[in-house]
Amino acid sequence: MDLKLVIGISAGILTALAVVPQVVKTIRTKKAAHVSPFMFLVLLAGNGLWCYYGFLISDLPIIITNAFSFSMDILMLILKYVYRDRD
Amino acid sequence: MDLKLVIGISAGILTALAVVPQVVKTIRTKKAAHVSPFMFLVLLAGNGLWCYYGFLISDLPIIITNAFSFSMDILMLILKYVYRDRD
Repeated sequence: MDLKLVIGISAGILTALAVVPQVVKTIRTKKAAHVSPFMFLVLLAGNGLWCYYGFLISDLPIIITNAFSFSMDILMLILKYVYRDRD
Repeated sequence: MDLKLVIGISAGILTALAVVPQVVKTIRTKKAAHVSPFMFLVLLAGNGLWCYYGFLISDLPIIITNAFSFSMDILMLILKYVYRDRD
């Protein structure tokens, strides 16, 4: 497997997984007051567009990693709403 | 400009700008206790690798958007450290 492919896949996996630690922390602490909902709205739009881009160029890794990120962004927005009254 | 290019550039700009609302919120509120530092460490690694990938395939948009994200991730980690004692 050539270097470019390894670097690209690793980068995609890392950026796809990045939201997971925030989701875990919010579930554990049940607090999200300091977290910006706009970050996850912008990420939602960005990951959604990357997913669509993946369909346009028929690139499965781009579709899968961004579909996963998209679902994590939605989960984080739900958690942000659920714990909205906790400071 | 064809649809694919527009979608790809828009997705790249959105995911690159996503961290900005969190940086602004943290500077405004001076609180980041609920924000996960691991998210920004994973993003830092991912954006760094995307930047390197951009060099490997000589793709300026990938280099620029991810270099910008990389610097925002560093800024957010600095803010997280600066405001670490504020609940």
